[in-house]
Amino acid sequence: MEKTGIGVKTLHRIQFLPERRQASIEPGKTLLEAAQAAGVYVGAICGGEGTCGKCRLIVCEGEVSGESTEFLTRAEIRRGYVLACQVVPHSDLVVEVPPESRLSSYIGVGRDSDRFRAFERRDAARVSRKTDPVTQKVFLELEPPTLDDPTADQERLLDAVAKRQPGPLQMGLKVARELPRLLRRLDAKPSAWHWGWDGRVTATVGLRREVGEILCLERGDTSQRSFGLALDVGTTTVVAHVVDLITGATREAAAKYNSQIGFGEDIIGRINYARRPGGADALHKAVIDDVETLLEDLLRRAQIGRGDVQCVVASGNTTMLHFLLGLETDLIRIAPFAPAMAAPPPIRAAEAGIRIHPRGLLYVLPMVGSYVGGDTTAGILASGMHRSEEISLLLDIGTNGEIVLGNHDFLVACSASAGPAFEGASVACGMRATTGAIDSVRIFRPGPIVSVTTIDEAPPVGFCGTGLIEAVAEMFLAGIIDRNGRLDPAAAGGRYRLGDEDGRPAFVVVSAEEAGHWRDLVITQSDIDNLIRTKGAIYAGADSLVRSLGLSFADIERVYIAGAFGNRLDVAGCIAIGLLPDLPHERFHFIGNSALAGAKQAMLNRRILDEAYHIRDRVTYQELMTDPQYMDRFISACFLPHTDLADFPSVAERLHGDSRPAVLQYADA
Amino acid sequence: MEKTGIGVKTLHRIQFLPERRQASIEPGKTLLEAAQAAGVYVGAICGGEGTCGKCRLIVCEGEVSGESTEFLTRAEIRRGYVLACQVVPHSDLVVEVPPESRLSSYIGVGRDSDRFRAFERRDAARVSRKTDPVTQKVFLELEPPTLDDPTADQERLLDAVAKRQPGPLQMGLKVARELPRLLRRLDAKPSAWHWGWDGRVTATVGLRREVGEILCLERGDTSQRSFGLALDVGTTTVVAHVVDLITGATREAAAKYNSQIGFGEDIIGRINYARRPGGADALHKAVIDDVETLLEDLLRRAQIGRGDVQCVVASGNTTMLHFLLGLETDLIRIAPFAPAMAAPPPIRAAEAGIRIHPRGLLYVLPMVGSYVGGDTTAGILASGMHRSEEISLLLDIGTNGEIVLGNHDFLVACSASAGPAFEGASVACGMRATTGAIDSVRIFRPGPIVSVTTIDEAPPVGFCGTGLIEAVAEMFLAGIIDRNGRLDPAAAGGRYRLGDEDGRPAFVVVSAEEAGHWRDLVITQSDIDNLIRTKGAIYAGADSLVRSLGLSFADIERVYIAGAFGNRLDVAGCIAIGLLPDLPHERFHFIGNSALAGAKQAMLNRRILDEAYHIRDRVTYQELMTDPQYMDRFISACFLPHTDLADFPSVAERLHGDSRPAVLQYADA
Repeated sequence: MEKTGIGVKTLHRIQFLPERRQASIEPGKTLLEAAQAAGVYVGAICGGEGTCGKCRLIVCEGEVSGESTEFLTRAEIRRGYVLACQVVPHSDLVVEVPPESRLSSYIGVGRDSDRFRAFERRDAARVSRKTDPVTQKVFLELEPPTLDDPTADQERLLDAVAKRQPGPLQMGLKVARELPRLLRRLDAKPSAWHWGWDGRVTATVGLRREVGEILCLERGDTSQRSFGLALDVGTTTVVAHVVDLITGATREAAAKYNSQIGFGEDIIGRINYARRPGGADALHKAVIDDVETLLEDLLRRAQIGRGDVQCVVASGNTTMLHFLLGLETDLIRIAPFAPAMAAPPPIRAAEAGIRIHPRGLLYVLPMVGSYVGGDTTAGILASGMHRSEEISLLLDIGTNGEIVLGNHDFLVACSASAGPAFEGASVACGMRATTGAIDSVRIFRPGPIVSVTTIDEAPPVGFCGTGLIEAVAEMFLAGIIDRNGRLDPAAAGGRYRLGDEDGRPAFVVVSAEEAGHWRDLVITQSDIDNLIRTKGAIYAGADSLVRSLGLSFADIERVYIAGAFGNRLDVAGCIAIGLLPDLPHERFHFIGNSALAGAKQAMLNRRILDEAYHIRDRVTYQELMTDPQYMDRFISACFLPHTDLADFPSVAERLHGDSRPAVLQYADA
Repeated sequence: MEKTGIGVKTLHRIQFLPERRQASIEPGKTLLEAAQAAGVYVGAICGGEGTCGKCRLIVCEGEVSGESTEFLTRAEIRRGYVLACQVVPHSDLVVEVPPESRLSSYIGVGRDSDRFRAFERRDAARVSRKTDPVTQKVFLELEPPTLDDPTADQERLLDAVAKRQPGPLQMGLKVARELPRLLRRLDAKPSAWHWGWDGRVTATVGLRREVGEILCLERGDTSQRSFGLALDVGTTTVVAHVVDLITGATREAAAKYNSQIGFGEDIIGRINYARRPGGADALHKAVIDDVETLLEDLLRRAQIGRGDVQCVVASGNTTMLHFLLGLETDLIRIAPFAPAMAAPPPIRAAEAGIRIHPRGLLYVLPMVGSYVGGDTTAGILASGMHRSEEISLLLDIGTNGEIVLGNHDFLVACSASAGPAFEGASVACGMRATTGAIDSVRIFRPGPIVSVTTIDEAPPVGFCGTGLIEAVAEMFLAGIIDRNGRLDPAAAGGRYRLGDEDGRPAFVVVSAEEAGHWRDLVITQSDIDNLIRTKGAIYAGADSLVRSLGLSFADIERVYIAGAFGNRLDVAGCIAIGLLPDLPHERFHFIGNSALAGAKQAMLNRRILDEAYHIRDRVTYQELMTDPQYMDRFISACFLPHTDLADFPSVAERLHGDSRPAVLQYADA
């Protein structure tokens, strides 16, 4: 990196296209710092250390200095590509943020999308008609005070609420101050006003553990207008749904990449960033900004005011929930992995920076420990495995893979570091499961001939999780990669390429020409190696958990698969690569984003929120790192599908025949 | 009142001596408004309507317009006296606030005063050695987390606190955020820092009804440094004590006039003022400013930081407590007299504007109804009458007189409008029981010869409550006033005066010459008439309460007298004027400021705070206005000592002989 060497401090103005956001920075600051100052979140998985090559920007006008060719092709450099963390502006600049570097791009889920309809179907199936949400509106018609019963307004109200919601009640001063006027009509008289009794008031009662709090009061009957925000704060993706607390229906849904990716791809990278001065605040602010972006759009689309949203229920892994609350995360990184907080009490959402009703509450789902978080508690809730006699396995395959085994008698969990491949990150041509994502791949020999489908049938722009799994499975079944995952140039034929810079091989699934895109859509050798490590970690974790209880996979009656792969999951492909054990397909149930589903269930039913705390207390955490056999099992699983082909008889058979795989849609269970 | 009639709006700058406070006001505003804008609280009992004559200021420089001679003597007008609410500045002014008009004058109670020693004696006698205060510090030594026990910091803390303080616990986000660092040493390394376990932390736990809240955390052991503020917000006087919550000892004490007097002398006047735009805020601010004035001085004298004060327990009548909390007071004034709030939950003191620890709690003692407030609950607590088998009568003689009759089986209460005479207000030469107040009067015939004593043996400047009672009792026993309270010019001899303006008679107790004061210290016919109405109201109230239960005064085994008369009470004098029933002197127990004493007891013992709620629920309120016999009894009591002299045999005897009366000091019970 070259320094400017100029003492005169004239600020450089940097404009970022296409949003035209601007920042003025001092000479010597990097382009990545300029982007952060402008509120443009750019992929920088390594946290700005120049080792990931993800912060790719295109300099359209102006001059920069800095050598940064390692991750860029000759063609890209000619087109103006730079790595933002490695170059320093020398003048005012106009910079374009190419789509693949853009993290703040908002991904709404429209009411008419397949995705949304899938949510609606599941809502209808799962949510009981009678909701008992964590915050509830109670319409009261209070009798006027009399000389015989001059009970104070506040006690009159509390007595009436207590009849409907037993248990201790709290009430803040701000709310109490409003009460006398809300209970009365102020009738104007010529010289003054006088009080007339009304008594019709709606109280919103929020549950704070054992105690109810009267959060707000409204004149008249507003009890049919009550909403909540369900949040899943993932390492890679933040998802938010607005839920009608009266009917239990999801009103609007939206998702976006977690802007924290700009500070580090994985949890450890972000925790390290948070150790810098101001780092923790920046990470807290990034995720709160994401929530605000989602919330603002949801409210606009649902035509709901902020004051109508009385609660947020947030799910996520322990690190994400700590960043959401602005808590110390560094303890998660260091032994003995005791986090700052595992069972956060309900707090005012405004305290965390979330702008719903000013006195609205934020409930954070309880966590088991540093590496089994509120998303897992939610996943167990959503699957219902904790209520069933059958022994079930839950695989929550996000950027971290959490695995739970159990039934109504026992629950054990472990965590396997998976990586963000299934959400499209750290994959050469990866993307989220949105328009243009390749979600299905078929490869026919000879040729090989490749056929793909994309979400919304749009021109292909990258691979979502399902597409990646299918591509690798098909390449394997077609003999293009061997059981070690090595690409065979001969079998790949005309679709074999060598990387421009790193010289490593890649398989062209869709060429730039076929796609009408500026680049080939490839699966690289690195992508394959990453995927094998990811699936190996998850399979070995599940295997260790199952064996630790003296069971085998055959004893598992249900396997719940949760994650943000897309709308569907190719079970046969997952088995083919050895991500899932080779069991009859009917035992697999794809439950989609169970972290969000669990948060919604807890929001809509106080009993289920209580269950979340009980689940958390019941789960026994198994640390894989201290299991001496885990590493052996992981190494055995780093093959396609596995060292021991005898464990995957259906794959062994397909490697000789070719039966088309079954595709699982959302389970309607 | 004359208008300026000038259209040009040049502001007038008004400077108030002796503090040199300033305000700039528009032409047309009154001098009283200027004083309020400058934060100079001036007596204005009528609320600025020109009918009380209390807002007396001296214009030293500049011009004013407005006729306002009604309440001023010729001599006063020559000296520059004006009524602030009746004159309008015509230029910049320099104005002096004479001592008798000054309300903000701070009255500290030094550690070496008689008053303070009396408090200390009572503390020592009453407070049990083992305190169990409403906010408590708990020093914890937490074991470090291990791989076998990676419990989160917050749960580790909550588990440890729960062992010491059973019951549900709450904890705010701000406190939780600090926890990881407080539990650890941050050891600097050359390149970074790393975490070392400490685990020694002090948690302050505040009781919020059934739930404990961890209000704050401090590194190390600070458990021996914990303070509370006990407040008595009286209509006329605000008293504050700083109490050591560990030992139960009072560290410092202070009192001042309630600055709200500037907005109206009595409760109804202030409630009416609060109906004006901005009025309620002004009254809330006035009392909060008074608390701040007292607190600032107490902290300085006790050398305590604001952060060391974790709770406030406030006592006072229902109206004062509503103003303190900023609640609607107008409902107190109008039938059916149902207030906004009777049992306020603990809130953060900062929410009310009181600047102790930012998360410290404010406990307001529960009220029975609009006219029997938290001061009465406190008085019952302080007397202990609710625990005794003996039937007791409690007379709390403040600006409102509250009367309670009962024992451990029953408690009935009523309220009699007394007036602020005993606190020195609305008396021609009245003052609080501070330096220079006449607290004892003896009158010898013939002559009459008058002998007085004053507090701190200072030159006399006015009468405190005790002095007023003794003066009238002695005048009555000496035949200077008759049983109707009429001044007899012949018996008064050379001490008989006619008022300069109103022409009504007065008795000179100490002449200007004798006192070295600018005016005679007189008891006027109005003062006597007021006192008779005041004592008549209280006596008739007690009489009605006693008779309503089929009892007579003779059945009362203990009479507790509470109020701010001074350090002592002349029981014989009180009986002589018919304020107290004619019972053996040993039945009377002067318990001083029982509102404050009860607040302190509740602060130092959670069980006693609970008792306050139980007492409140047990008390039956009797409305005197709906008792058809009350008015008859009141009229009968508006004589000295009473229409029926047979009820006062000791007074009948003294009117013929002359035995010196006994004087009660603070009861050491």
